[in-house]
Amino acid sequence: MSSSNTVYRASTTAPVNIAVIKYWGKRDTALNLPTNSSLSVTLSQKSLRTHTTASCSESFSGPDTLILNGEKEDIQSSKRTQACLKHLRSLRQELESKDASLPKLSKWTLRLVSANNFPTAAGLASSAAGFAALVRAIADLYELPQSPKELSLIARQGSGSACRSLMGGYVAWRAGTNEDGSDSLAEEVAPLSHWPEMRALILIVSAEKKGVPSTAGMQTTVETSTLAPARFKEIVPQRMQEIEKAIKERDFETFARITMQDSNSFHAICLDSWPPIHYLNDVSRAAMNAVETANRKAGKLICAYTFDAGPNAVIYYLAEHAHQVAGVFRNILPQVPGWEGEFGGSIRPNEYGGLEQKTLMTLKAGVSRVICTAVGGGPEKVERHLVDARGNAVVD
Amino acid sequence: MSSSNTVYRASTTAPVNIAVIKYWGKRDTALNLPTNSSLSVTLSQKSLRTHTTASCSESFSGPDTLILNGEKEDIQSSKRTQACLKHLRSLRQELESKDASLPKLSKWTLRLVSANNFPTAAGLASSAAGFAALVRAIADLYELPQSPKELSLIARQGSGSACRSLMGGYVAWRAGTNEDGSDSLAEEVAPLSHWPEMRALILIVSAEKKGVPSTAGMQTTVETSTLAPARFKEIVPQRMQEIEKAIKERDFETFARITMQDSNSFHAICLDSWPPIHYLNDVSRAAMNAVETANRKAGKLICAYTFDAGPNAVIYYLAEHAHQVAGVFRNILPQVPGWEGEFGGSIRPNEYGGLEQKTLMTLKAGVSRVICTAVGGGPEKVERHLVDARGNAVVD
Repeated sequence: MSSSNTVYRASTTAPVNIAVIKYWGKRDTALNLPTNSSLSVTLSQKSLRTHTTASCSESFSGPDTLILNGEKEDIQSSKRTQACLKHLRSLRQELESKDASLPKLSKWTLRLVSANNFPTAAGLASSAAGFAALVRAIADLYELPQSPKELSLIARQGSGSACRSLMGGYVAWRAGTNEDGSDSLAEEVAPLSHWPEMRALILIVSAEKKGVPSTAGMQTTVETSTLAPARFKEIVPQRMQEIEKAIKERDFETFARITMQDSNSFHAICLDSWPPIHYLNDVSRAAMNAVETANRKAGKLICAYTFDAGPNAVIYYLAEHAHQVAGVFRNILPQVPGWEGEFGGSIRPNEYGGLEQKTLMTLKAGVSRVICTAVGGGPEKVERHLVDARGNAVVD
Repeated sequence: MSSSNTVYRASTTAPVNIAVIKYWGKRDTALNLPTNSSLSVTLSQKSLRTHTTASCSESFSGPDTLILNGEKEDIQSSKRTQACLKHLRSLRQELESKDASLPKLSKWTLRLVSANNFPTAAGLASSAAGFAALVRAIADLYELPQSPKELSLIARQGSGSACRSLMGGYVAWRAGTNEDGSDSLAEEVAPLSHWPEMRALILIVSAEKKGVPSTAGMQTTVETSTLAPARFKEIVPQRMQEIEKAIKERDFETFARITMQDSNSFHAICLDSWPPIHYLNDVSRAAMNAVETANRKAGKLICAYTFDAGPNAVIYYLAEHAHQVAGVFRNILPQVPGWEGEFGGSIRPNEYGGLEQKTLMTLKAGVSRVICTAVGGGPEKVERHLVDARGNAVVD
């Protein structure tokens, strides 16, 4: 039986996703509406995930709180977080108004606790997994009937790319055309089970001063790049069609070519912005070079690089080519952490002749860790809560 | 009195030019017709020049020859050189057919000797100055009445950007629209005397393996870059108008902004090519960073970077800002050769706080020499010949 002291809780884990068709540019900054559709691969939560517990109780007082990796976050002044909470509460309110027997969770203070299983120092954007977990956990707490697709609209308001982390496998974010953003949401293109052989090797490039933050960078590009309009209007829509077809047909070569071309196109419009934005450095280019060499040696495309708003490389390949792709990097970088676990442990070093000395040296000097992962599933409900039954945060 | 042993000679020097609106892409590879117009600053021959002597004599036999920097070049199999020679001979023939008293130089073997005053190791493209000097020297030998603008059409067939080295000051190469290339030629936008205060500091980045050769790279871009068409059709034509106006009004800030934007746009379409083409490296980016810092400190644009098909930086600035711009680099790079001569000798080192340690270290490690130069005049007829009166090459 519930009393006013009852603490309602729901916990979820949510994945990171890495886009192969890049999101770069907002047509509406308040609603996080993009200039173009994008497409990503959801990565396995065995390697990278955010774990979030949403809790509420009639006995909680004061404003909503969020503890992230042990630190209290200022969510009151975060318009984006507030937009998500408001939207979720209104959906709960609809339920409560239809069924008077439901507890009035929508009126109560939320206590949110969240933790990543990967170090912030890894330099990976965690906001996508973070907002996806937040929305999913609260939706579960509120027992909302909305589908992941419907919830993706809410997560998008927190962080654009978060909408793609509400599903597993291969996920498209449709830019949409409505001014209110009601058709700008994520959609599964293919589930994990359709093409589970996809692997991802992430090369973390030694921490440097952080580059231009992505929200600011996107606006600079939208406002100043004279090359960007063609990308938004023609190039990406065409590529979306091609890569969706490639995924449906499990055509890795086409998938790889478009992935690399779209990463290059994104960094090209960054360079074309004013002032120019640089995310790739010589280490990134050495990784591109190693990928090109592996493909040349194989006589076909067996791996593809992609780079987000930073120098880290993400290299996609199929499990059958682990030795030819990841093995090369394991041979070059035996000393860095990350060669363990389900996706890394079995990779044997590949003694490898084709790489230039300069590429080798640049990678050795510049890569500080690797993450061996794979395509994975969507958010998962979990029973381990980061808030105890009395409403206190517990250490993850 | 002339005999069959008389050696006719003409010698010229011709300048290097560095584009501020870049030529990248051919619409016709045989005729060297570009996808877009371009604009360059002719650099002073006090710093960089090619010296060429054209000679012919009834007594010379065998095929035409060219000795470049002491080495015999294979000009028989160079379609481009042959196109230039054929065109120049036909113009001479017109004169000879109108005036029977003229010696039949057009029928005689040419001996050409050419030398650069800068080391090949400097990594500067010398083909522009080389073809400009070749065409100018032969035109003088043949006493052709054609204007530099008319001759630029011939030099263009040797090397596209060579057409811009037939004039001093600020020179546009009009892309033209005719299929035969008859309207694709260079034109003076403003002479040296209009804006003589323009200076150029060239940072030579330590020799690496040469990147993709420009002719091959251009074709890759034309055939594969999905961003390039907008550059060719809309962006460059607009910039040409803006920068010509800026030059006419001596508006350095506009000149600088467009120069930097167009360099970035060119490298963006290189990155967007498939496979991608990289010419900028971390040293180039450190130079960009130093330029941005100098501009920020000045509160206005007092210098502009531009990069051709390689990592070397060319930095334009006005003489009045020598201390604020070149002085910074002299302070960072006191040990490298090149800080002497008319344009470099007076530059005082500028003790300079604003640069990040990483930028400083990257420049120190990566720049192997500098060239201090300025806007300069067009080709000059000289009396010093590289072929002696008996027709033998002399050491420069």
